[in-house]
Amino acid sequence: MSCLLRDRPASTLEMLTAFGDEALLRAALSFEAMLARAQAEAGLISRVAAETITAACAELPDVDGLAEAASHAGTLAIPLVALIRERIPDPDVAKLVHKGATSQDLADTALMLQAKVGAALVVRDARRLADALAVLAERHAATPMLGRTLLQAAQPITFGLKVAGWLQGLAGALARFERETAAIQLQLGGATGSLAGLDGRAQDVTERLAALLGLPAAETPWHARREGLAGLASSLAILTGAVGKIAGDITLLAQTEVSEAFEPKVAGRGGSSAMAHKRNPTGCQVALSAAIRAPHLAATIVAALPQQHERGLGGWQAEGPVLAELFELTHGAVAAMAVVVEGLDIDTGRMVANLTAARIGADTGESVALVSRALTAYRKDR
Amino acid sequence: MSCLLRDRPASTLEMLTAFGDEALLRAALSFEAMLARAQAEAGLISRVAAETITAACAELPDVDGLAEAASHAGTLAIPLVALIRERIPDPDVAKLVHKGATSQDLADTALMLQAKVGAALVVRDARRLADALAVLAERHAATPMLGRTLLQAAQPITFGLKVAGWLQGLAGALARFERETAAIQLQLGGATGSLAGLDGRAQDVTERLAALLGLPAAETPWHARREGLAGLASSLAILTGAVGKIAGDITLLAQTEVSEAFEPKVAGRGGSSAMAHKRNPTGCQVALSAAIRAPHLAATIVAALPQQHERGLGGWQAEGPVLAELFELTHGAVAAMAVVVEGLDIDTGRMVANLTAARIGADTGESVALVSRALTAYRKDR
Amino acid sequence: MSCLLRDRPASTLEMLTAFGDEALLRAALSFEAMLARAQAEAGLISRVAAETITAACAELPDVDGLAEAASHAGTLAIPLVALIRERIPDPDVAKLVHKGATSQDLADTALMLQAKVGAALVVRDARRLADALAVLAERHAATPMLGRTLLQAAQPITFGLKVAGWLQGLAGALARFERETAAIQLQLGGATGSLAGLDGRAQDVTERLAALLGLPAAETPWHARREGLAGLASSLAILTGAVGKIAGDITLLAQTEVSEAFEPKVAGRGGSSAMAHKRNPTGCQVALSAAIRAPHLAATIVAALPQQHERGLGGWQAEGPVLAELFELTHGAVAAMAVVVEGLDIDTGRMVANLTAARIGADTGESVALVSRALTAYRKDR
Amino acid sequence: MSCLLRDRPASTLEMLTAFGDEALLRAALSFEAMLARAQAEAGLISRVAAETITAACAELPDVDGLAEAASHAGTLAIPLVALIRERIPDPDVAKLVHKGATSQDLADTALMLQAKVGAALVVRDARRLADALAVLAERHAATPMLGRTLLQAAQPITFGLKVAGWLQGLAGALARFERETAAIQLQLGGATGSLAGLDGRAQDVTERLAALLGLPAAETPWHARREGLAGLASSLAILTGAVGKIAGDITLLAQTEVSEAFEPKVAGRGGSSAMAHKRNPTGCQVALSAAIRAPHLAATIVAALPQQHERGLGGWQAEGPVLAELFELTHGAVAAMAVVVEGLDIDTGRMVANLTAARIGADTGESVALVSRALTAYRKDR
Repeated sequence: MSCLLRDRPASTLEMLTAFGDEALLRAALSFEAMLARAQAEAGLISRVAAETITAACAELPDVDGLAEAASHAGTLAIPLVALIRERIPDPDVAKLVHKGATSQDLADTALMLQAKVGAALVVRDARRLADALAVLAERHAATPMLGRTLLQAAQPITFGLKVAGWLQGLAGALARFERETAAIQLQLGGATGSLAGLDGRAQDVTERLAALLGLPAAETPWHARREGLAGLASSLAILTGAVGKIAGDITLLAQTEVSEAFEPKVAGRGGSSAMAHKRNPTGCQVALSAAIRAPHLAATIVAALPQQHERGLGGWQAEGPVLAELFELTHGAVAAMAVVVEGLDIDTGRMVANLTAARIGADTGESVALVSRALTAYRKDR
Repeated sequence: MSCLLRDRPASTLEMLTAFGDEALLRAALSFEAMLARAQAEAGLISRVAAETITAACAELPDVDGLAEAASHAGTLAIPLVALIRERIPDPDVAKLVHKGATSQDLADTALMLQAKVGAALVVRDARRLADALAVLAERHAATPMLGRTLLQAAQPITFGLKVAGWLQGLAGALARFERETAAIQLQLGGATGSLAGLDGRAQDVTERLAALLGLPAAETPWHARREGLAGLASSLAILTGAVGKIAGDITLLAQTEVSEAFEPKVAGRGGSSAMAHKRNPTGCQVALSAAIRAPHLAATIVAALPQQHERGLGGWQAEGPVLAELFELTHGAVAAMAVVVEGLDIDTGRMVANLTAARIGADTGESVALVSRALTAYRKDR
Repeated sequence: MSCLLRDRPASTLEMLTAFGDEALLRAALSFEAMLARAQAEAGLISRVAAETITAACAELPDVDGLAEAASHAGTLAIPLVALIRERIPDPDVAKLVHKGATSQDLADTALMLQAKVGAALVVRDARRLADALAVLAERHAATPMLGRTLLQAAQPITFGLKVAGWLQGLAGALARFERETAAIQLQLGGATGSLAGLDGRAQDVTERLAALLGLPAAETPWHARREGLAGLASSLAILTGAVGKIAGDITLLAQTEVSEAFEPKVAGRGGSSAMAHKRNPTGCQVALSAAIRAPHLAATIVAALPQQHERGLGGWQAEGPVLAELFELTHGAVAAMAVVVEGLDIDTGRMVANLTAARIGADTGESVALVSRALTAYRKDR
Repeated sequence: MSCLLRDRPASTLEMLTAFGDEALLRAALSFEAMLARAQAEAGLISRVAAETITAACAELPDVDGLAEAASHAGTLAIPLVALIRERIPDPDVAKLVHKGATSQDLADTALMLQAKVGAALVVRDARRLADALAVLAERHAATPMLGRTLLQAAQPITFGLKVAGWLQGLAGALARFERETAAIQLQLGGATGSLAGLDGRAQDVTERLAALLGLPAAETPWHARREGLAGLASSLAILTGAVGKIAGDITLLAQTEVSEAFEPKVAGRGGSSAMAHKRNPTGCQVALSAAIRAPHLAATIVAALPQQHERGLGGWQAEGPVLAELFELTHGAVAAMAVVVEGLDIDTGRMVANLTAARIGADTGESVALVSRALTAYRKDR
């Protein structure tokens, strides 16, 4: 059962892979294996038991069957743990699998392992886009064009000033996203987040597990304290919106009657199934579409904040798929617009012509100075 | 690339199949095949050409490659039409594929073919749930229980009155959904919705194609007029919310301290990976999770309404995945709660005990009469 | 404490008045007065008591003090009922005020009385807008213009076809709204919706009260069954979106480089505080702004559906302000666009020039026939 | 025209005042007065002219008339500037009012001046709530209670651990909000954000105006770069959600069958218009209601990010009322829960009884250590 035709046009293969079934399974198995290893290091279980468990977590199980079982059980952990245990002949070792952990520990940590990969992809391509914008802003710092407000000709600006604004919005949104990735942490709390079941070695196990998985340890378990995830989700939506702003402006500039900027010509991209002459803004379409969807996904996670008691019902189960989708859409938008901006096809002659036709003078104010200030700030924070 | 582990727990295999890649491809190929056939019937192209095209649409292409190509082109139609044409040796016939149609005609119609299947599944299981509620309401029309307002003991009601309220909410939401399925219509408009390119036989071709595909013909093309889809999406979210209300109440009744009603015991369902004694409300969890997510998905489609000019950029491309998800979540919720309600485990003794403990009297008012009125109305509309 | 500077630009004085403090108080007092009268007619209380209560409901109390008291008590009903009782010297009559009712009966019924007024305003101006669109579509059924897809020149259409699409979207959304106004019903259920406290005459009292207030009686009390309100709210947001589509297109046509249509010139409207030459699309701005806000407001009410038990906590208290805002924004959008469309300033010469410049031919397909079909359907349903 | 009965129960008088008409007008007049003064200091206009303008900004104009005029003009700035100019006899001075500024400069800056006041109120009461939580967590660090997961009895925890989780969620959300208040900045860009119209002294005027108004100067004008506002709005919604989590848990603990914690008894609060025995969780209701509404309001502002060109149409006009509402709801929630937590009525005996009844042992794991760790972190960051 695949959903690539639906999901691929809105995202990238890299990000879909990072949040696909196989990556999720690997993350979940890694949690169980490293949990055993951390407990062995902390002296809770034997090293042999830990290696046996690790070995039992090596092979990926069948996805279809596991998905059915997870759906029936209400959580992935139950059938997955059962499956790992089945692979271990010694029942005394088998019962050590998942020791001290709860379903949500596995679910949250696996999601965070995926999010860590996803965040690196977002940052990589958002920086690429920002750098492309910086180059463009500098090159066109003094290129005059029509400034438009309320979608009407207003007063002159420079194209560099417009691009500098795009850059600042993106850089601000990216900085926020990078701050919010601090929420990508290990989850380990046991049944009610009291860290019972770890034989009094909870802190030690937690720190070792965090190190083994490459995730920061949380101050305390966060089963029902989801504000960090909500911040992360919101920052993804805002980043997508900042990219959507760029896409929207380019789309408007690319209108037939304006014709000041166009997406780069790429063979087979932006065509029309009905009209051979068309050059559709396909990269912008991806970003605009994402900017329509992302705010609602972030709001879902914010709305789910009041989760009940020690671990809630319905709320955290809603977060995983939604956060995955946010990463997918954000990366789709960022990656598409990096390509668009890097190859943006600009008609400075038409910019001048449109400006002249509007008969509003040629005073571009302090545009050049503003571009310079924006670029300096960007390079300092970089 | 699959996403079953993410999507399956929140939906059903039936609905995921209905909106999976294979179903989408079959729907898209069916559109192209039947378009040719309708044009042959209307005398625009030869019957031989139509049969050649139909034959070229028989075999499902490779999904992965097509997904990449669709993502590159910005629309599924371009690579799919190219692929069908490649399968046809005669170039004069090949160029007749997709004649008079545009990318969005294919995208919208394929989505509507999937939505038709999805709607039938939703209706089937929502009726099943409603019938189970009607049985329960009748059986417990006079069973006294504590009425609770603002989550405090208030005054006595009967359990039947509570269930009748669930039924009425569901029935109202289902009736709305059935009305809104009128939006599931054929899309055929050509490049700008003017039905150019059909040699003056647009109305004839449209009606024949609608009949061949089993979809109603729209009054006129609706490329940029999406209020019907927004109504459909909203009605799905409202239906999910009505089901979520039932799940929420059962969850509260199933609390350890209340213990008046429980999900049916099913082997392997509702267990805990950490605590053997637990009986988690897993069906309710599915519905509550869906009820958290669905409103935001519907809002996405409503927010996308102001689509630009004859066919927009970003808006309609956002709708497909979101509508699919709404169908998936709604069906997941409805199907899960049908099982829960059909097998609901009720402790009427505890109901009496909790009512007595609250010391608020025993006057259940007109509860029995209200149940009767609700059931009569339900059966009349049924 | 007023908030006119914030709310007025997004709405109309009529609608703000319909949902203002004074209208709410009048509705609430009317509920208490007519409840007494209905109970007198049904023989529950004496006619003299009913007239005493009615008289005590005549004068509007001080809003500021009541708002503080309502906030303190957690509901308007408590201080308002206390205040009415204080106005009645005879304690035996005073205690009959609010007999058999609960706070939510008053809150819901008052909201519905306001919604009834609001719905009439929305329908009145949406029809006015639709009629103006029908006139425009007919007049320009054959006026050629450039069809634009994905914000690029595509193929020719007629301006009438574009306007007919606007009309169909609006008419469909208006029809949905009118259907959903069926949710505007009396609320009377007593403490837990069991209609206890009306001495066995609940049905009689309900019907009489409904008649006196001019609201339909509900099948049964709907304290925790809110799908009707969610449908009403969604239909308002969809209507706003359909109007936003019109505003968006006009805004694009009014761009300096396109210049095909403009808002009517009205003294003092659409000016700029910085640029004397500007003619801003101010009516469209109102509609676009509303179309951005409305989907999220509707989603709030849909998200609040799973309300707990017999009367929930937090959910229905959230609905009132949000529904009021939806009515205010929708009417603001509809009324603004009625003025815009009635006086739309169209440059058919520029339409031809832009079409010619795009060099895509002049075949407007079946545009004229489609306009005719759309207008026929509109007039039939009218 | 007031809307106090609608808005007061969901907010506080302080916050409603901060975002009321009078405060908005004062902020707007302050912008114009200080702009003149800053220009005088920078040598652009004479000191006499600046004082004349400042004097003309002293008196508050009539709100009703101004609201009508602002609605007609499409922006508050136009009638307000006209009104100030009318108050100045010398036409040469009069025309210096609003020099170099645009409508959005006034609108944004006034909103930011209000937001600064609002932010201080939110921080004040969120800290008060956090401090009350810290006291409670410490006091009950070792008080045993039932841990509940998926709304079922799970394993023992301590009440202090539950409260520490509330505190950490709140503290995290508050820290994010304080970071995001960095977006509260002066707006001054002129017609297209190019700072034309300030005679080459833009930077100087900007810095002086910022100092005079007590707002930080922005790096560059941010008319169409709204990610900061989106971050601020999202952080308000997340803060409200973190407070809603506390309210939800207390509500569940206060259920008649659980009876472990209750809102403080306050005369006249939490009563029922129908049932004298009830003690409704009225403070929690305010917070839960806010937590339902806030995510959708934040999403509105995120969705509005792709604003067109140099200053958009519809997007920024939507932000003002929505941001005001977010401040109002957040403060309502925070202030209500501060009172609730400070006076929380806890029944530790019932906690033990419920725990014992669940027969799940008494091992509270590392609860006490976790509380200690949480409190240490809180006090360090404080």
